[in-house]
Amino acid sequence: MTTRLLTDAPNVVTVGAELFEQALAAQGVDVTPVDWRPPTMDAAVLATLASSGMANANQLAFDRLVAAEPMWVGIDTARDVVGIETGQFLHAGPPLTWERASGPMRGALIGAMLYEGMAATPDEAIAIAERGDIELAPCHSARAVGPMAGVVSPSMPMVRVHNDAFGNDAWCTLNEGLGKVLRYGAYADEVIERLTWMQDVLGPALADAIDHNGPLDLRSLIANALQMGDELHNRNRAATSLFVREFMPALLSTGRPTDQLAEIAAFINGNDHFFLNLVMPAAKAAADPCRDIEGSSMVVAMARNGTDFGIQLSGTGDAWFTAPAEVPDGLFLGDYSAEDANPDIGDSTITETAGVGGFAMAAAPAIVRFIGGEVADALAATQSMYGITIGEHPAFQIPILEFRGTPTGIDAVRIVRTGVVPFVNTGIAGKVAGTGQVGAGLVSPPMEVFVDAVTALADRLEEPSD
Amino acid sequence: MTTRLLTDAPNVVTVGAELFEQALAAQGVDVTPVDWRPPTMDAAVLATLASSGMANANQLAFDRLVAAEPMWVGIDTARDVVGIETGQFLHAGPPLTWERASGPMRGALIGAMLYEGMAATPDEAIAIAERGDIELAPCHSARAVGPMAGVVSPSMPMVRVHNDAFGNDAWCTLNEGLGKVLRYGAYADEVIERLTWMQDVLGPALADAIDHNGPLDLRSLIANALQMGDELHNRNRAATSLFVREFMPALLSTGRPTDQLAEIAAFINGNDHFFLNLVMPAAKAAADPCRDIEGSSMVVAMARNGTDFGIQLSGTGDAWFTAPAEVPDGLFLGDYSAEDANPDIGDSTITETAGVGGFAMAAAPAIVRFIGGEVADALAATQSMYGITIGEHPAFQIPILEFRGTPTGIDAVRIVRTGVVPFVNTGIAGKVAGTGQVGAGLVSPPMEVFVDAVTALADRLEEPSD
Repeated sequence: MTTRLLTDAPNVVTVGAELFEQALAAQGVDVTPVDWRPPTMDAAVLATLASSGMANANQLAFDRLVAAEPMWVGIDTARDVVGIETGQFLHAGPPLTWERASGPMRGALIGAMLYEGMAATPDEAIAIAERGDIELAPCHSARAVGPMAGVVSPSMPMVRVHNDAFGNDAWCTLNEGLGKVLRYGAYADEVIERLTWMQDVLGPALADAIDHNGPLDLRSLIANALQMGDELHNRNRAATSLFVREFMPALLSTGRPTDQLAEIAAFINGNDHFFLNLVMPAAKAAADPCRDIEGSSMVVAMARNGTDFGIQLSGTGDAWFTAPAEVPDGLFLGDYSAEDANPDIGDSTITETAGVGGFAMAAAPAIVRFIGGEVADALAATQSMYGITIGEHPAFQIPILEFRGTPTGIDAVRIVRTGVVPFVNTGIAGKVAGTGQVGAGLVSPPMEVFVDAVTALADRLEEPSD
Repeated sequence: MTTRLLTDAPNVVTVGAELFEQALAAQGVDVTPVDWRPPTMDAAVLATLASSGMANANQLAFDRLVAAEPMWVGIDTARDVVGIETGQFLHAGPPLTWERASGPMRGALIGAMLYEGMAATPDEAIAIAERGDIELAPCHSARAVGPMAGVVSPSMPMVRVHNDAFGNDAWCTLNEGLGKVLRYGAYADEVIERLTWMQDVLGPALADAIDHNGPLDLRSLIANALQMGDELHNRNRAATSLFVREFMPALLSTGRPTDQLAEIAAFINGNDHFFLNLVMPAAKAAADPCRDIEGSSMVVAMARNGTDFGIQLSGTGDAWFTAPAEVPDGLFLGDYSAEDANPDIGDSTITETAGVGGFAMAAAPAIVRFIGGEVADALAATQSMYGITIGEHPAFQIPILEFRGTPTGIDAVRIVRTGVVPFVNTGIAGKVAGTGQVGAGLVSPPMEVFVDAVTALADRLEEPSD
């Protein structure tokens, strides 16, 4: 049926210019506003990139990302593998100093000093940090990742994930469970006792079990969990359950006393997020071989330290592009509210970087009961991410989208072109040191980090190469 | 925008009368055919039922069904609880004789005789059966259910489910795993050896673990699995994983040798359908208190014996309404094809009777890779079941349908009014005794069993009550 231009009412679609939309609406005209913003950077810069082989570079980066074969191969002690000694700590996100650290980051560092025996009280730990007697470095700089504060100290057991396709390793601490935990900035006695138990009992038992079991195929486990309602960042219930099911016979084969095995089984069973600390190093192990591809605008790290949000691109080496982290919005636990929330924190955005997490929300409609929103929002979130990614993951499929692969390989250029930023799921830490988790929800990365990164990438390409 | 009746083309919707649709289509008119068939029975019968308090009776039956609190409380030996002695066997579906039994049913009975030591060879077992020296009764008549052939013999360990809301119990055998198994009609040595191991090792260990664990809340577990991609009939991967996760600490607490525990963990882990034999008695325990409500047209049992498909209604006592079972269609294993398929078999349709299984297909889009079809078919299947059910289950919710409750409480009157029959998922047994499973797919119950049941219900209401 055709619209009769002169007799029928006009259908007006307005893009960008809100004044025009408002003027028409005031005259009673039906207006369909489209949420589109003009590109956030100079067209000449984007043209430079487009003419410099960026598409090929991005395809190469994407191909490496999806070819990853992350296997859980063992447990190591941090001091042996990530290059830290007493007084040195890794943390989530881009580089940070004690002075600029937020409450939960300081809380986690205090807890780590207590756990390492560097201090007997929180006040002593604070004094040590204020004297400058600790050294901090990002997990990402040591081929590691950590959820929330992401603090790693030398004695902690770490999951080792090997990428069979490229031969590289990645590390992550073991998940501590819920409630008062170090990663959310808590440092009460129970936190330190649990970390000690993880060091003495859990870590060695898991190491033995992996030896009995052989390497655990994380790519396959993640693919299965996506068919069972997980998005692998804020929802890891299926993945944790599949892991327990597959791993328990191996744990039983270690010959450890059954009461210890029962304690371990109960600990893992009590925490739907146990698998988060396996999917994160799997994603890190997949992303690292995509680094240092000249001209590629693919994001290889996206991480927050509770103060700043930072990204790294494949084509810009080890440079971090940062801006102040936003405060997440979502559902809060108990009596907590948005006022208690710390700005965005954690390396767990490595999941989105590798094509799961917020990018796979459509696979996990039940998650809206945990982070807020409607089921339709979850579907729309994934759909919108296809516009800022390089391709679709061949193994990570979403049944409800007729098994379409998850949107994978975040392209900073597509982000600045479209004005659409990555969709990020996250836990929410209390902003006061020692509080712990206060909720879970969604957060938007600041657009300027993508603009700065793309500008830097273009600048590198304009420099004459030797 | 309005349609101009005289100038624009007509939009024609045709219902029922295909000739009219074809005549218009031949004239180039756009026709939207609607798949509707006239009611399959006399309007006077339906009017009788409508005026006899049927709506209230059905509401009462539905309320009882969804109020069920099925708990796994223990393991019993069949002879102690379902009233069978040597030479007596329970079987799936409506009543059956050896003479009319299909290949897989005969195979399972042969296997059960070998397992019970009644016969040393399959030929001896067949001779015993042909002499009439065995007695058969439906599982449903003994407050039990069994998947596929559903054969229960006196020595088998059985899951006991207690409905806390109404005080009744239901029983089911333990799942044997995949491949050559008794329930699919296989009776090779490995089948009998596994049954013996289940009797000697698995059953007692699970019984101990339940004692240590306390009752296991199956309603909650089913509700969680629906949020994790299971529909609880042909897909029980999430439920089995959640079960292992919750149950393993209890199993470890039994103090049994770890090599035995490892064997049990590996057995359960090797079989995504382990939980089917827990959801089935949970559904049976929920359905039984809905029996014998005068005037109710709600289905309280729907079951197949490999020869006949049968149903029981709440308002028609113990009467079975049967018709020849259809052959399921779906995906076949290995070199098997539709030609190898036996007609529909098993009590597992108790899942659909209780609001899960085929009725919850929308919760399990990944299942189309197992039974065939498209994801849209899975959504449409659940949507169409709302038209033949009394209500929506308050605890069994489907995230992708914005947490709408599953269509629950099959109403035989709505079926005969609409011509829509229940949507049933099923495994497919080989038709030759001893073959085992050949595939999985979908099957339609024969409409006539619902017509006969509704007619019988109306007849009862017309009889003067004393």
